[in-house]
Amino acid sequence: MFESAELGHKIDKATYDKEVPILREALLEAQFNLAKAANFPVIILIGGMDGAGRGETVNLLNEWMDPRYIQTHGMGEPSDEELERPMMWRFWRALPPKGRIGVFLGSWYTWPILNRVSGITTTADLDQSLERAKRLEEMLHAEGAVIIKFWLHLSKDKQEKRLKSLEKNPATRWRVTERDWKHFKAYDKFQSVHESVIRHTSTAEAPWIIVEGEDPCYRGLTVGKTILETLRNRLEQTATPVAKVNVPPLLPSIDNIHILKTLDLTKSLAKKPFKDELEKYQGKLNFLTRDPKFKNMTVIVVFEGNDAAGKGGSIRRITGALDARDYQVIPIAAPTEEERAQPYLWRFWRHIPRKGRVTIFDRSWYGRVLVERVEGFCNENDWMRAYSEINDFEAQLVRHNIIVVKFWLTISKEEQLRRFENRQKTGYKSFKITDEDWRNREKWEQYEQAICDMVDRTSTIISPWTLVEANDKNFARIKILKTLCNQIEQALANLSPNDAKPEPKLKH
Amino acid sequence: MFESAELGHKIDKATYDKEVPILREALLEAQFNLAKAANFPVIILIGGMDGAGRGETVNLLNEWMDPRYIQTHGMGEPSDEELERPMMWRFWRALPPKGRIGVFLGSWYTWPILNRVSGITTTADLDQSLERAKRLEEMLHAEGAVIIKFWLHLSKDKQEKRLKSLEKNPATRWRVTERDWKHFKAYDKFQSVHESVIRHTSTAEAPWIIVEGEDPCYRGLTVGKTILETLRNRLEQTATPVAKVNVPPLLPSIDNIHILKTLDLTKSLAKKPFKDELEKYQGKLNFLTRDPKFKNMTVIVVFEGNDAAGKGGSIRRITGALDARDYQVIPIAAPTEEERAQPYLWRFWRHIPRKGRVTIFDRSWYGRVLVERVEGFCNENDWMRAYSEINDFEAQLVRHNIIVVKFWLTISKEEQLRRFENRQKTGYKSFKITDEDWRNREKWEQYEQAICDMVDRTSTIISPWTLVEANDKNFARIKILKTLCNQIEQALANLSPNDAKPEPKLKH
Repeated sequence: MFESAELGHKIDKATYDKEVPILREALLEAQFNLAKAANFPVIILIGGMDGAGRGETVNLLNEWMDPRYIQTHGMGEPSDEELERPMMWRFWRALPPKGRIGVFLGSWYTWPILNRVSGITTTADLDQSLERAKRLEEMLHAEGAVIIKFWLHLSKDKQEKRLKSLEKNPATRWRVTERDWKHFKAYDKFQSVHESVIRHTSTAEAPWIIVEGEDPCYRGLTVGKTILETLRNRLEQTATPVAKVNVPPLLPSIDNIHILKTLDLTKSLAKKPFKDELEKYQGKLNFLTRDPKFKNMTVIVVFEGNDAAGKGGSIRRITGALDARDYQVIPIAAPTEEERAQPYLWRFWRHIPRKGRVTIFDRSWYGRVLVERVEGFCNENDWMRAYSEINDFEAQLVRHNIIVVKFWLTISKEEQLRRFENRQKTGYKSFKITDEDWRNREKWEQYEQAICDMVDRTSTIISPWTLVEANDKNFARIKILKTLCNQIEQALANLSPNDAKPEPKLKH
Repeated sequence: MFESAELGHKIDKATYDKEVPILREALLEAQFNLAKAANFPVIILIGGMDGAGRGETVNLLNEWMDPRYIQTHGMGEPSDEELERPMMWRFWRALPPKGRIGVFLGSWYTWPILNRVSGITTTADLDQSLERAKRLEEMLHAEGAVIIKFWLHLSKDKQEKRLKSLEKNPATRWRVTERDWKHFKAYDKFQSVHESVIRHTSTAEAPWIIVEGEDPCYRGLTVGKTILETLRNRLEQTATPVAKVNVPPLLPSIDNIHILKTLDLTKSLAKKPFKDELEKYQGKLNFLTRDPKFKNMTVIVVFEGNDAAGKGGSIRRITGALDARDYQVIPIAAPTEEERAQPYLWRFWRHIPRKGRVTIFDRSWYGRVLVERVEGFCNENDWMRAYSEINDFEAQLVRHNIIVVKFWLTISKEEQLRRFENRQKTGYKSFKITDEDWRNREKWEQYEQAICDMVDRTSTIISPWTLVEANDKNFARIKILKTLCNQIEQALANLSPNDAKPEPKLKH
């Protein structure tokens, strides 16, 4: 795997000095075209062996390119705000927007590699992490991002030589740490883990480029030229490449039976029992969130449903039981300019709360497979891949001890009409009803298909959908509160002190 | 001061139950009008005595209003990311955008009050903090924000009674902490500090509303009605009120002498000494940023200058000496949608870095008094007040051990023409020259006036402007590097271990 990177590649100084100015100018031009077009971001990962010149390569790139449109992230120790969220949150918050270049020193590979080498994890754990990394990159690629992954390699002899020579020079001595020598002693172990990483995660969309790290001239020129060529290729493509999807409709409806029709929308709850139950479950919810263990937990509640199905009212019944300091409600409308410059899931990642908090999404990432699908706001390929992207996203949340509770509120077409008309009549409610609502109504059947597909494909054991019969508001609100209480109660019961601890710090 | 809030105000349950539904509907309507118009944010501060019902009031507001457009911030312990920045950073990041309501439990008053009561600070310190708070609110008001400050009051007797009754009830016992009793013992001290705070910071734009806290019905209705009336009043105003400025031109130029003309633009540096000096000062800069004490420091560099004055090239000479992980360059262009929904300085606050970092602004907050003034993008009142707002902003940074280094790069009108023409001729540079650049050039004299006013009004001892003669690029680059090195060196020398510590945690 590393054969070509142990051949002793070398570029002489004269050639280097001749080539660099030309390369620089070309890189600057490509960078400006990228900034001007601003239709895709560039993500560069710099990985590799200690002493193989990762830091120097990054500094060189920054020197060659316009520092205003490139940003380097040294992903060292995570902050406490980062530790309270899933590991990937810190990468999402650092992703470059369209038109910019983000360079990552330390990436989503760093942790899995170190954990495996130090024996904290098994090969199976490692493979699982790599599979996740691959899926992440696949998604970023599908969102238009260009991903360039460099692996700077150094043979064992060369690494030793390099460390010794750095130590000899008083000007560079500070750069060699005890950690470096410790890692050197584990060279073979690292090497075998590295090989596994590279083998598993060199994909067509984001292959690893293995570069011999010893000679700075060779290393710099190779990295620079690779970036230039990749940028040029991508800039030449007039549009984001869209893979054609050739699939039959997800589940053809041939017998006119589907899950929404199985719901008994006549279910209802009279005023008196409703009041009792409301008090009971709001009290319980309040009690649960005051459990000391809750400080180590995070709850995310997703509300989706037909227009006028009563999402707002249900949300208020939840928030009414909580302390205002502990929750936030995120209404999802059209994405902002900054959100449009990022992959689809970015605008949800940014709202993932710290521990001890409840975040309620009024509409959510499921817009991708509902309104965006039905209205054609994204293409078929985009919403088709969204199912697994969403499952991956929620799995990451759940792995971090976040409870994801999802409600779909169903009302009948007749009930919706009644509510629409009622809203139009009532002064302060009329703002709630727009032409768009009436237009959506015309596509009732298409939405039903999309809802059924969504439930089939994203109702998972770790994060199931709860379908709520919402023709009767009382019934719906109690079902929602009860479900939420049960899920939190169960999670609290499962929460061992060990689970509650933040993921281990990146010490290496 | 608290007389009216110790009268035993009470609203009977029947009146309350009758009034609340009406108030709620009206509040909802006002809230939706606010969200629809989306032309100003609402900032609600809830302060007051322990046990006066602050938390309950906030929860009530959230219950009454639509939780999607109101967000509550319990400003408790700051996170490590917050501690590494000036105290106000955490408030800036939590400010509601236009159309939304932000409720703050704990505000920029909390800390000064606690520090004064516990004797950490003097009365003079307190007054200084209050003056700063007032200036902040003045600025927010001028930016269009509605600020409503509630002070929930409780007499000494009532506070004792309240704490005891909470303790007696098993359901509420958990809410009374040792801290509460400690604070109760210091009631008189608190009271006198509170009075001072309220007296100093009750302004026409943001007066304190003192509300008797004992009776929940009275308290809730009073707060709710005050918010309603304030919102209604403000929504009725068709445009943001603009105070008319009646001042003569800042400094009339009657003898044709101004600071820019005092610069000797013939200053230059030959290639050989330039190379030597560049190596020397880049080396020095690199060395300084590797000082262990630098980890406790933050450097912010501001670049302003005529178009084509060489900001980009100068920035690259700085970044070339730094590790790419330690700096970021922020190019300031037109604000994004999310930035436009916030006060002017918000888009700069968001880029204030953590400790141990260098942030370079390529153009900056000074756009307000330069391009925005000259091009009329904001009105006279806005740029006139910007001078002191900017001074306040930089003072906050400096108080937090941030070094703010500001460069103005001057070139002559003839040199600019030469560079413009040269840029148009050179392929990859032609992107750099736009019609706007040519238009700006026509307003050369107006810009000169704005630059002189800016320097006169914002070159302070804590953060002086360095005017750079930039007709010769070599000379300019060395002057910049040298100045930056000197300022960092001096700051490192002044940095006692004590200074370097983060501000004390909000423990109370």
